[in-house]
Amino acid sequence: MTTVGFIGLGAMGVPMAWNVADDFDLVVYNRSEAPTEPFADAGVPVAGTPRGVGERADVTVVMVTDGEALRDVLDGTDGLLAGLSAGDYVVNSSTVSPDDTGAAATLVAEAGGRFVDCPVSGTIGPAEDGTLTMLAGGADADVDAVEGVLEAMGDPVVRCGGVGDGTHAKLSVNLLLGNMMQSFAESLALADANGLDVDAMLEAIGSGGVAAPLFDAKGEAIAEGDFEAAFPLDLQFKDLRLALDSASEREVPVPATAATKEAASRARALGHGEEDIAAFVRGIEDVTGDEIRR
Amino acid sequence: MTTVGFIGLGAMGVPMAWNVADDFDLVVYNRSEAPTEPFADAGVPVAGTPRGVGERADVTVVMVTDGEALRDVLDGTDGLLAGLSAGDYVVNSSTVSPDDTGAAATLVAEAGGRFVDCPVSGTIGPAEDGTLTMLAGGADADVDAVEGVLEAMGDPVVRCGGVGDGTHAKLSVNLLLGNMMQSFAESLALADANGLDVDAMLEAIGSGGVAAPLFDAKGEAIAEGDFEAAFPLDLQFKDLRLALDSASEREVPVPATAATKEAASRARALGHGEEDIAAFVRGIEDVTGDEIRR
Amino acid sequence: MTTVGFIGLGAMGVPMAWNVADDFDLVVYNRSEAPTEPFADAGVPVAGTPRGVGERADVTVVMVTDGEALRDVLDGTDGLLAGLSAGDYVVNSSTVSPDDTGAAATLVAEAGGRFVDCPVSGTIGPAEDGTLTMLAGGADADVDAVEGVLEAMGDPVVRCGGVGDGTHAKLSVNLLLGNMMQSFAESLALADANGLDVDAMLEAIGSGGVAAPLFDAKGEAIAEGDFEAAFPLDLQFKDLRLALDSASEREVPVPATAATKEAASRARALGHGEEDIAAFVRGIEDVTGDEIRR
Amino acid sequence: MTTVGFIGLGAMGVPMAWNVADDFDLVVYNRSEAPTEPFADAGVPVAGTPRGVGERADVTVVMVTDGEALRDVLDGTDGLLAGLSAGDYVVNSSTVSPDDTGAAATLVAEAGGRFVDCPVSGTIGPAEDGTLTMLAGGADADVDAVEGVLEAMGDPVVRCGGVGDGTHAKLSVNLLLGNMMQSFAESLALADANGLDVDAMLEAIGSGGVAAPLFDAKGEAIAEGDFEAAFPLDLQFKDLRLALDSASEREVPVPATAATKEAASRARALGHGEEDIAAFVRGIEDVTGDEIRR
Repeated sequence: MTTVGFIGLGAMGVPMAWNVADDFDLVVYNRSEAPTEPFADAGVPVAGTPRGVGERADVTVVMVTDGEALRDVLDGTDGLLAGLSAGDYVVNSSTVSPDDTGAAATLVAEAGGRFVDCPVSGTIGPAEDGTLTMLAGGADADVDAVEGVLEAMGDPVVRCGGVGDGTHAKLSVNLLLGNMMQSFAESLALADANGLDVDAMLEAIGSGGVAAPLFDAKGEAIAEGDFEAAFPLDLQFKDLRLALDSASEREVPVPATAATKEAASRARALGHGEEDIAAFVRGIEDVTGDEIRR
Repeated sequence: MTTVGFIGLGAMGVPMAWNVADDFDLVVYNRSEAPTEPFADAGVPVAGTPRGVGERADVTVVMVTDGEALRDVLDGTDGLLAGLSAGDYVVNSSTVSPDDTGAAATLVAEAGGRFVDCPVSGTIGPAEDGTLTMLAGGADADVDAVEGVLEAMGDPVVRCGGVGDGTHAKLSVNLLLGNMMQSFAESLALADANGLDVDAMLEAIGSGGVAAPLFDAKGEAIAEGDFEAAFPLDLQFKDLRLALDSASEREVPVPATAATKEAASRARALGHGEEDIAAFVRGIEDVTGDEIRR
Repeated sequence: MTTVGFIGLGAMGVPMAWNVADDFDLVVYNRSEAPTEPFADAGVPVAGTPRGVGERADVTVVMVTDGEALRDVLDGTDGLLAGLSAGDYVVNSSTVSPDDTGAAATLVAEAGGRFVDCPVSGTIGPAEDGTLTMLAGGADADVDAVEGVLEAMGDPVVRCGGVGDGTHAKLSVNLLLGNMMQSFAESLALADANGLDVDAMLEAIGSGGVAAPLFDAKGEAIAEGDFEAAFPLDLQFKDLRLALDSASEREVPVPATAATKEAASRARALGHGEEDIAAFVRGIEDVTGDEIRR
Repeated sequence: MTTVGFIGLGAMGVPMAWNVADDFDLVVYNRSEAPTEPFADAGVPVAGTPRGVGERADVTVVMVTDGEALRDVLDGTDGLLAGLSAGDYVVNSSTVSPDDTGAAATLVAEAGGRFVDCPVSGTIGPAEDGTLTMLAGGADADVDAVEGVLEAMGDPVVRCGGVGDGTHAKLSVNLLLGNMMQSFAESLALADANGLDVDAMLEAIGSGGVAAPLFDAKGEAIAEGDFEAAFPLDLQFKDLRLALDSASEREVPVPATAATKEAASRARALGHGEEDIAAFVRGIEDVTGDEIRR
């Protein structure tokens, strides 16, 4: 039976790893120890280094915060790659830049491993339910080989193309996410300024072609004034920068995205960067002086 | 039993009127005769003038193309108002500007009638199924009085507030609609430039928080290269102008909407104004020289 | 000798009228009386109504605040046109919309007069010095006929084309003006955030291809924190709306102008509408919390 | 007497070096040999490596294309720093990113030298006339020490602050430059669509507060349809990206700059990247189908 390694037990990583444990033998590693304890209590082996994961696992999923953390996990004497056997699989689910994905793929290949990039779309709820959208990029045979692991964590598994294409898909999805949040904020702010009740607007938006789960969740948060971060504006801003960089490289003009990024910059300058992306609306409210609340 | 008048048998008006006929006595009028014939064949009385509708109906729904057409229907010796009895209801479902709505409300009140503005959100499919989103603005008692008629045509009936608030809600919904289409186009164009398959992207977008019926329908159209107008870009552009005018009046800064309106202007300048709003993407394709097709 | 009428003795109109008085017989009218007194003291005839001006003058210059004021001056029993003789000239120097210009031209023509639109570019200093840029639109023979009057008020007299073209030129110049102010604000704010001294930046901007009298004057105002209105942001915002409306009609995409208009909207929402256009920078400062001062 | 080294004999470097030769002993180096020949013919020593320049010069000016070329000049066994004596000065006049400037400063300091960053604002004409705007960043004593060399190449020498501040000033100036070009293009395109003659508009723009040498030069180029690169759009686009990156880091929202960058991206996608920045207008013309020509 396949042994699966999981590195990075953050808010997303923990439920993803538990879902893996339902179907596979699991071994975990985390930089700090506390998040590993419930796994140890349940009899899941905890490695002392990423290398220790590599030595036991056939497939290792990495879910860390950024490109630097990914490199740290892979590289060095205690790194995952130092423990890798030829033909082992590394699946990167962290959201990093296309350059970081490329660098990771090269390192894994040089170490004799097989690499699949598979960023996920979705937040904690879908991570717990195993309904994350898995954006897989890799050679067909490699995605076939790890598909069972991916299916343990999410549904659907979208085959985006070769290595790196999962990362590109994720950038394009998050570009859309950011734009939708700013546009939603503009729509609600205009309606509010015209005297409309926020609940009426949420009902109007929630019942036609523009209806989206995003608007249900974030509309409720805005009406309640609850901006605790599920997905923080600072991270959305980072993704918008990566998407715009990619668009600049590819000569694809993206004016609505550019306007949205500056709106995100404004919300951050106004102090809302650590709040949820619902706080795009606060970048408008702080300027107009009107709050959109129930 | 209530008799309902219906004025304006266009692509949307015809299925809406048939749905009314299921629940109420109906009388119809249309400027040209052809669209009235199926109704006549089915025994529905056809009036020769809007006035003739007013003389028979207790509640009249108007569904015409713009503010000028609305005024023409209401006013003059053959106008709807000339046939109105005190206490009769006029429901305007045409999308017009806030100023046009206000002017119509005044005319109806002066003629002794009661006015409700109720623009609809949705296209031909929902019009046929009776699942249009009805954005009702009017005094509570007036919306109560016509609610059965509104429910015959759509679901839900959203109570937006007083007279004019349906119009404001519609502008805010269509602002969001336009922005989502341009953002969707930017997302797909960037993914395409990065070598991704359009079907993979549509699957990725269609399975998470950003999933929306709009993206299912328009994504399919873009992948097929089918830009026949369900909702033409020219009308979307008109609505974006109205929304921006309203935002300017109310001092609500809406930068993503402003960027989207210029993108719509670009698509029109490139010759796509009479195509569907899916053609926002053609405003990008024509510039980059790359088509996003299956 | 030609008698010249001057209607509208505001901040701009007063120095313009005095310059006319140097070269021509003058007759003035103003809605309120106070501004006419220095003229009366100097022996300049003061008419009690616009009609009184029309009865005496061969050429009348109108310099009022907007399209409604222009119509009020022209129309009615006491209006300028009621006093006009066939072949008299009316020069409109007020900044109004293209539609208002067209309406005024029609009224003048129906009254047997000749119409030239000639908005001016420049503020009080150039008005006093007689160096306003005169943006003349009219038939060649008509501009020839009033050229001496125009030269009394400004230099150069730019021949923009037929009736209405002066108005169009003015919109395009003021579009550029607004955009330059927002771009200047962005440039200074970025430099300031990077720790640069405002005086160094003003010197850098003031010595190359981008140097402009505008930046000298407004840069000094920003460094001093002096936002007293020479040209108020509210009027700049109005002109940007007119320019964007014209661009929408003509299908000319103008994305930088659209972004600038929303920036102006933001500055107004933050309370800076009655301040000078130098206050574009305050729309940024209020968001970042950093003031750019000497 | 001070000996001055000059590395990088491109279109800008050649006239700058000749101006230095008027006041100082000069030694030059260029990667390819051809541009050094006129200097050799005039008796100016030509070094075979950057190291050779460093061995002879007290102050060396570097004027190369980008950060990578700058690093190549400084570093390695044949690099400038290998020949540097303690207390020698290196002046970087190449336009590079703030990060590249910081890296160069560190390398020079480690080699015992003194570093001044001094990007220049202006094109070939001012380079020949010695009227470039010199944007100097460095310790006061260091700028004092090299001021004579800077004055040989330009006027004024703007003291922007410490090391790196010249680079920041340059980014802010070029942000303004790019924005002004796109705004100028929008202004001319709108006027043209309204039927105005381009010469009338250039006269209108050229005589008021918005008048700038840039508009004189580029207006003439647009009217003539001459888009041969003085400053290519591709380089302007690069500078806009650097400025936006800096603004993102500093949380300064710059929406007009963001819109302008996307306009530049559009012009590049349409094939105008190697043309002059006057070609911003072609990004509009290609969309509207109307050319603005004399």
